[in-house]
Amino acid sequence: MLRIGVVGAGGWGRNLARNFAALKDAELVAICDLSEEVRRANGRMYPDAALYEDFDAMLEKGELDAVAIAAPAPTHYDMTRKALEAGKHVYVEKPFTLRSDRAAELVELADKVGLTVMVGHLLEYHPAVLKLKELTDNGDLGDLYYMYTERVNLGIVRHAENAWWSLAPHDVSVILFLFGAEPVTVSACGRSFLQEGIEDVVFANLQFSDGRMAQIHVSWLDPRKSRRMVLVGERRMASFDDMEPSEKIRVFDKGASVVRDGYANYEESIRLRSGDVMIPHVSSSEPLRAECEHFIESVNSGSPPRSDARDGLRVVRVLEAGQRSLDAGGEPVSLDG
Amino acid sequence: MLRIGVVGAGGWGRNLARNFAALKDAELVAICDLSEEVRRANGRMYPDAALYEDFDAMLEKGELDAVAIAAPAPTHYDMTRKALEAGKHVYVEKPFTLRSDRAAELVELADKVGLTVMVGHLLEYHPAVLKLKELTDNGDLGDLYYMYTERVNLGIVRHAENAWWSLAPHDVSVILFLFGAEPVTVSACGRSFLQEGIEDVVFANLQFSDGRMAQIHVSWLDPRKSRRMVLVGERRMASFDDMEPSEKIRVFDKGASVVRDGYANYEESIRLRSGDVMIPHVSSSEPLRAECEHFIESVNSGSPPRSDARDGLRVVRVLEAGQRSLDAGGEPVSLDG
Amino acid sequence: MLRIGVVGAGGWGRNLARNFAALKDAELVAICDLSEEVRRANGRMYPDAALYEDFDAMLEKGELDAVAIAAPAPTHYDMTRKALEAGKHVYVEKPFTLRSDRAAELVELADKVGLTVMVGHLLEYHPAVLKLKELTDNGDLGDLYYMYTERVNLGIVRHAENAWWSLAPHDVSVILFLFGAEPVTVSACGRSFLQEGIEDVVFANLQFSDGRMAQIHVSWLDPRKSRRMVLVGERRMASFDDMEPSEKIRVFDKGASVVRDGYANYEESIRLRSGDVMIPHVSSSEPLRAECEHFIESVNSGSPPRSDARDGLRVVRVLEAGQRSLDAGGEPVSLDG
Amino acid sequence: MLRIGVVGAGGWGRNLARNFAALKDAELVAICDLSEEVRRANGRMYPDAALYEDFDAMLEKGELDAVAIAAPAPTHYDMTRKALEAGKHVYVEKPFTLRSDRAAELVELADKVGLTVMVGHLLEYHPAVLKLKELTDNGDLGDLYYMYTERVNLGIVRHAENAWWSLAPHDVSVILFLFGAEPVTVSACGRSFLQEGIEDVVFANLQFSDGRMAQIHVSWLDPRKSRRMVLVGERRMASFDDMEPSEKIRVFDKGASVVRDGYANYEESIRLRSGDVMIPHVSSSEPLRAECEHFIESVNSGSPPRSDARDGLRVVRVLEAGQRSLDAGGEPVSLDG
Repeated sequence: MLRIGVVGAGGWGRNLARNFAALKDAELVAICDLSEEVRRANGRMYPDAALYEDFDAMLEKGELDAVAIAAPAPTHYDMTRKALEAGKHVYVEKPFTLRSDRAAELVELADKVGLTVMVGHLLEYHPAVLKLKELTDNGDLGDLYYMYTERVNLGIVRHAENAWWSLAPHDVSVILFLFGAEPVTVSACGRSFLQEGIEDVVFANLQFSDGRMAQIHVSWLDPRKSRRMVLVGERRMASFDDMEPSEKIRVFDKGASVVRDGYANYEESIRLRSGDVMIPHVSSSEPLRAECEHFIESVNSGSPPRSDARDGLRVVRVLEAGQRSLDAGGEPVSLDG
Repeated sequence: MLRIGVVGAGGWGRNLARNFAALKDAELVAICDLSEEVRRANGRMYPDAALYEDFDAMLEKGELDAVAIAAPAPTHYDMTRKALEAGKHVYVEKPFTLRSDRAAELVELADKVGLTVMVGHLLEYHPAVLKLKELTDNGDLGDLYYMYTERVNLGIVRHAENAWWSLAPHDVSVILFLFGAEPVTVSACGRSFLQEGIEDVVFANLQFSDGRMAQIHVSWLDPRKSRRMVLVGERRMASFDDMEPSEKIRVFDKGASVVRDGYANYEESIRLRSGDVMIPHVSSSEPLRAECEHFIESVNSGSPPRSDARDGLRVVRVLEAGQRSLDAGGEPVSLDG
Repeated sequence: MLRIGVVGAGGWGRNLARNFAALKDAELVAICDLSEEVRRANGRMYPDAALYEDFDAMLEKGELDAVAIAAPAPTHYDMTRKALEAGKHVYVEKPFTLRSDRAAELVELADKVGLTVMVGHLLEYHPAVLKLKELTDNGDLGDLYYMYTERVNLGIVRHAENAWWSLAPHDVSVILFLFGAEPVTVSACGRSFLQEGIEDVVFANLQFSDGRMAQIHVSWLDPRKSRRMVLVGERRMASFDDMEPSEKIRVFDKGASVVRDGYANYEESIRLRSGDVMIPHVSSSEPLRAECEHFIESVNSGSPPRSDARDGLRVVRVLEAGQRSLDAGGEPVSLDG
Repeated sequence: MLRIGVVGAGGWGRNLARNFAALKDAELVAICDLSEEVRRANGRMYPDAALYEDFDAMLEKGELDAVAIAAPAPTHYDMTRKALEAGKHVYVEKPFTLRSDRAAELVELADKVGLTVMVGHLLEYHPAVLKLKELTDNGDLGDLYYMYTERVNLGIVRHAENAWWSLAPHDVSVILFLFGAEPVTVSACGRSFLQEGIEDVVFANLQFSDGRMAQIHVSWLDPRKSRRMVLVGERRMASFDDMEPSEKIRVFDKGASVVRDGYANYEESIRLRSGDVMIPHVSSSEPLRAECEHFIESVNSGSPPRSDARDGLRVVRVLEAGQRSLDAGGEPVSLDG
């Protein structure tokens, strides 16, 4: 029975508390929040959980096996480090940290103390994304050429972070997950319209050493709500539309093949194929539930979680490079910089 | 009655011939094409039109008032120059030329000889685009923040030009038309998968001096056919989906307004508004028909057409900068370079 | 403060309990269910509510002002009568009763004892339906010609009632609400495929004395999930699609007008008009919440609720006639029968 | 080489003329139309075709092998009879005739003279309908339970026939084609809003002796343009949406199976299955082209066409019964009447 304390239980943290409280192998033993009102509300829902205003106090007195950190991003590094030093396993929301050197430090620390650190890259636990992973890994799509993602909506407009750090971690984590590689350069163009210095919309391009490419479009200032991804492979193409209630994934038996034995007539040297479209049935289970279960299994088994600290570091490196490119007006930024 | 000769009547040129032949103020008197088969086919459809294999011969003997050039892009500069020197008005398909210095030379020449030059920026004559122009100019959308366009499909894969030069002229011409300005820098990322050195997919970003931004996504290697544009303004937002049979334009009474009198609570400092959506009725008339009529009216009135040589030059300058950025791996390229 | 007891808290009744417990002017003081497990589960959620296995016991000892009946349809008549005789206001789920004579008896009884009876015709409290009511009443659509509804899905397959009694009460209540009239005849055709004598799909047609018409299509054996209504008026048309997350209502400025001054050429005697389409913003508040609030207000004010016992009777009369038509193989059945 | 004359070349007949003129095994040798303007227009397009004002004259002097009849429906019986008596094969547009006894008479006559008669049931030649036929015949859907069709739009409003006779022949012919059977009863409800006695909207229900059912919804007074069909089978379900540019057919691996070994708990006795959705690639060839080719092949081979006179008779019998039901206010009408 894993004894868990949740820090930051006002917003998204509520969902973490709800799920951990519901899992049979976990026990929600403590909740920590700066707001008395939030503490009181959680106290009513979880009468057996101890309430803390101070994170250090929870670590000290809480008799915890693990902490789930849903406090604001700037606190992630500090709280994760303290928790590890206190001997607790850590589940921390995305983005892992706001600086890659800090993320790298936490990777080392986690290895040294031999504890589990898992980052809340929710989409890596989404049944539809796992289906895309299956399609790419088993060769159904053939070699991947490129993919692009769109995560736009009107709201929620953040004040502490821009649309890139708020929305793109989901897309970046899925791209690295599906490609199984890190990009070599990131170019990002964006604009701030509502608040000075806080980009509302960002278009970013990731280039990979083997020629693959990924494009990300994030915005909280858009008339449509869209959550979609398109993968283009040599043999087939696929799309994921998370706004569709049930038909989220489509596999297009479409492609263009090049006939390499030099034709006189170029027109004949490329063959387009438009075949059936398959909409595979995808489980409608809640990704967050699966994510919380995965954390508990990882702690119990001692094997690294899918979205471990190294994964968190990789994502932060891309976000950081993207921010540098944004600040430089779209200059491609190398990750080896 | 404007006497017109069409050069390049195999592909798209057929549509030009058909439209000019049908207009009451125009007469299709000559058709020029290198292919005997194409000449014969057009001869059957337009028995009164003289047939030429050689463009110079048509200019010399054709007794024409104007020529419509639908030959491959590399020939546009040469044919336009020759036609102007021969005293003919010119309708030339997009892209106007493949180099901006050549386009600039043609602008000068057209002025010197006092003849009409019109570039086939078809979308500037699309009823839906004219509705978008009306919405932006009359202030319905408020100050424009940014727009983005998507022009993707599986095929037609070109061999002489990449997806950028083949598809983006439409998007660039509409962006300049709606913004009423030229960008200061262009960044473009793309990849060649099917043919070496010929980009199949390109993502480009245009930055304007006043802070506005436009993004273009073109591809001929995509599972979906999409032809859409989204405009985000301070007061309202709008979208144009050319795949919709009738409901092409949507005006969203949506926006985010910032309350400037510094709030303690930032949450209150931004107000999101989600109101009605209006789908204005847009004429379903054929854009090409309107375009051909506009050419004839422009010649007759002597007033410059909407998509005149200067417009053609502006678009080529953006395409050229985009190609330089593509070649430089996404480096932002200044148009004043 | 209205003291309410809920009977039948296993299925839909849970939602009634949740809403009444949350309303500030109501108090959930008792829960009655035959299942001990259901009682225990509700006991945990509502520790202050008394638990009863027997409805009579709850009426006797419960010190209630009102009861909310979510027990199976066959019990509605009996429980409503007993509650009224015990001096309690009644909220009862649809269908009001399974026989119109029983419904009529309850209307009389409610009048005699001067208590509030409200039937759970949920859609009469749906913001989108209220928008349709506004559009019809204020003349935006002109005279209503006809409407049709579609309520299909795969599942939930019932065993005690067919798709007509399970799904159609929603459509019938909305039709009577919008038309402000009762039909004179009902024709219904259906088939039983899964269970003998229990129709899985029903198509019903309602004819009104003034020439208006309504069609209903219900099924729990269909590949698509659809919840939609279309209204055709003399001046405009409207649709309601409850599967749309936000754009539920569309008002089409479309119509066909007949020019009455007898034309020689009939073609000219009918003018089709296709104008703008408007998607009005509709509140996304929960209909059930509004319904529960309306019940409390009605009890407190003493004014009859929108879906009172008379409304319940009208709906049952149509359902009953529809069932007779189903049993007679589609024979139109008169409501005055 | 089949020598064909087309009668009624003003409206839809133009498409017949265009197709027959283009087919290599046919020759368009004559065109007959009452309107001099229509004759002149066709004369320009088909200089080699003889022009007639009078049908009898064309039959007499035309040296034809076959006639294609696209004149108004009331003329179909007379013209078909005359053509057969004159020894010509006949292609006649739907509806075959306006009375079933006349259709039966033509079936007999065609047999007697041994000539081909084909009725223009266009959808029986639509690639998507042929795919549905394949799915039903090869058992992919299992036993068919029921199907329904929707053919609605704003316009074209007819004056000589109602929406039932104008639109439903397509649906009826497909239903009989897919079911391979004739219904035993037809119930139809409709209303006339624009013109007295001419129904603008009709809902019809067809009952088959083996328990299968089909529903038809036709209207020319509707805000949406819809052309769709849904088939529900024991094993799978399918839909056909002709408004979709490419994804016209969907096969749903969905169904409800009943477990017959009497359960105590009814809930367990029905199993719902929701699996993959398949969108098979369907040829985008023009149905009318295939239809015209089929006529020529049938004449040349002497084998009866898919939509022969008997098929035409079957469809007219259903339309006739439907009209009787309309006139009787929805009374189910038996086809054996």
